[in-house]
Amino acid sequence: GTLGGLGLALGLWRRQAALAAAREDEEEKELRQRFMAPPVSGLRELRRRRRELRSRMELLIMETQAEVCRALTALDPGASFAVDSWERKEGGGGISCVLQDGEVFEKAGVNVSVVSGLLSEEAARQMRSRGKSLKAKDGKLPFCAMGVSSVIHPKNPHVPTMHFNYRYFEIEEADGTKQWWFGGGTDLTPTYLNEEDAIHFHKTLKEACDKHDPKLYPKYKKWCDDYFYIKHRGERRGIGGIFFDDMDSPSKEEVFQFVKSCAKAVVPCYIPIVKKHCHDSFTPEEKLWQQLRRGRYVEFNLVYDRGTKFGLLTPGSRIESILMSLPLTARWEYMHTPPESSKEAEILEVLRNPKDWVH
Amino acid sequence: GTLGGLGLALGLWRRQAALAAAREDEEEKELRQRFMAPPVSGLRELRRRRRELRSRMELLIMETQAEVCRALTALDPGASFAVDSWERKEGGGGISCVLQDGEVFEKAGVNVSVVSGLLSEEAARQMRSRGKSLKAKDGKLPFCAMGVSSVIHPKNPHVPTMHFNYRYFEIEEADGTKQWWFGGGTDLTPTYLNEEDAIHFHKTLKEACDKHDPKLYPKYKKWCDDYFYIKHRGERRGIGGIFFDDMDSPSKEEVFQFVKSCAKAVVPCYIPIVKKHCHDSFTPEEKLWQQLRRGRYVEFNLVYDRGTKFGLLTPGSRIESILMSLPLTARWEYMHTPPESSKEAEILEVLRNPKDWVH
Repeated sequence: GTLGGLGLALGLWRRQAALAAAREDEEEKELRQRFMAPPVSGLRELRRRRRELRSRMELLIMETQAEVCRALTALDPGASFAVDSWERKEGGGGISCVLQDGEVFEKAGVNVSVVSGLLSEEAARQMRSRGKSLKAKDGKLPFCAMGVSSVIHPKNPHVPTMHFNYRYFEIEEADGTKQWWFGGGTDLTPTYLNEEDAIHFHKTLKEACDKHDPKLYPKYKKWCDDYFYIKHRGERRGIGGIFFDDMDSPSKEEVFQFVKSCAKAVVPCYIPIVKKHCHDSFTPEEKLWQQLRRGRYVEFNLVYDRGTKFGLLTPGSRIESILMSLPLTARWEYMHTPPESSKEAEILEVLRNPKDWVH
Repeated sequence: GTLGGLGLALGLWRRQAALAAAREDEEEKELRQRFMAPPVSGLRELRRRRRELRSRMELLIMETQAEVCRALTALDPGASFAVDSWERKEGGGGISCVLQDGEVFEKAGVNVSVVSGLLSEEAARQMRSRGKSLKAKDGKLPFCAMGVSSVIHPKNPHVPTMHFNYRYFEIEEADGTKQWWFGGGTDLTPTYLNEEDAIHFHKTLKEACDKHDPKLYPKYKKWCDDYFYIKHRGERRGIGGIFFDDMDSPSKEEVFQFVKSCAKAVVPCYIPIVKKHCHDSFTPEEKLWQQLRRGRYVEFNLVYDRGTKFGLLTPGSRIESILMSLPLTARWEYMHTPPESSKEAEILEVLRNPKDWVH
């Protein structure tokens, strides 16, 4: 009868509700384990659209953020990451994780952002100058950009600073065509040169690249040396790594797999170097040289870095997340020149004339 | 006879040589008293062309440099200025005076430069964007630029940072027409607000301006607030002062006299403030806030300052002289927000909403 049917429906509904609640608990648990915070697009939405590249990339950048934060916390157990989820009123948002003034790390930031909206004329021009010719409708271009970016400044001058960034961009032209591309890179900025570390770092990156195409590492190693150039100093910011932009071939899937390999190489290329040196002893003079090199880091990021410039120009971008790449402290001395044949002169030489670390 | 004539000529030559030597000694003495180093154009050349505005401006900037350096040394007797005369291979040169790590001053730089040559396409475009339309011959414009510029960063957080710059520009167009203009300004960047000091500073500048035209101070005060704006922070760099550019009326002589009044006001507007506070006691928290404000100073100078950008782009410019404006040390903390109603919040309020200090 009708009542029997109703009872059955009610029982079914109750069971479904209980299942849904259990599933939500599961998801909550999974979230806490896997990520630093709930993803911008929502876990359910990411599951529903799990085959789309946008969703897979968002999961990858979330996983990378969590992996790196966990690896850093393991080395600096007294410190912890402040986690800020933020929204962008023009669309999207992000998750910023920052560890400040720890025992091992002076400042470590790992930021995820997933933003969308309309690209301004100014921002579009910045894009175009990267070689992309884009036809806008009414001067505005719908876009979606997501990425993970990180800068890690350790306290000990014998532990290098590391930076990485992996990003995906989609932009819709006036006629509806969708342009897409990936960009990214990982690079090392030591205060003092340690050849063994330099080789380990580059070798790990090269192996990640070589799995996809042996041409990639040499090309992106050179691009990195060219990009992180502080023109007014005639020096590179560091000893390089890999850097690429506008990568849109051979196929979306293949580029994604390459980016994934690079992102997975972040922890193995850097963390062993931190472990090896974070208890090295150092002198006040070595700390001072580190502070002067931090000054150069600031110069590069504020004067040349396209990501920073782009961020400062993008309306509604979160300034604290963009500038978290700056070191906790930096120093500028007038006419500081290290003595010939010193360890300080040794790293300068490599910053002026980049070397090949692996063949 | 011939011998007698020869003896007479020899005697005359000897006397002339002795006079010349005496004159050179005199000049040497005068140079040592008046200037930090011999002027770029040479004292004799400046004397010979003493009626030309270029020469009078060069003497003014040299005098201003010496006046300021002397006033600072008097307050920090243990410290001394390193004086570097440098040449620019493309034409001209300069004199950089830097005091570093004194008792009172963390870093004080006073730089004179007198350069000439051809303006590059890029540099000319920078000029044009300031509202000057210039017709170039073969894409190159002969120019002459001279100025004195200075940034003074004291140690004590209760003593503000001060910056000034006075400059003269000449540029020759394709048809031989000479464009000329003056620019400059003086502004104050306190770590903590002291209303009395703010009023003294602005009042002294206003008096210097009012002697020439009562319209100048209000106009240049506003220009200063607009120029030293750190857009991505929504804050001004400091509490302002005066700023102007492209000043080419009512006449060369009158603008020069105005610039001279401004240059002569540098010591009286700033030095009394340093004297008043350089022995104030301060806490580690106040020093930390100063370091965070130094970070903002770096952000403005590297991201927005046209002088710095222009310098970084100009080939053959002396990078150490351009970047001597950066503080000895700076700090960036993620998400630092001072508590409401604190002294730190008080200065932020004024940086966000500039005030009128004199009427």
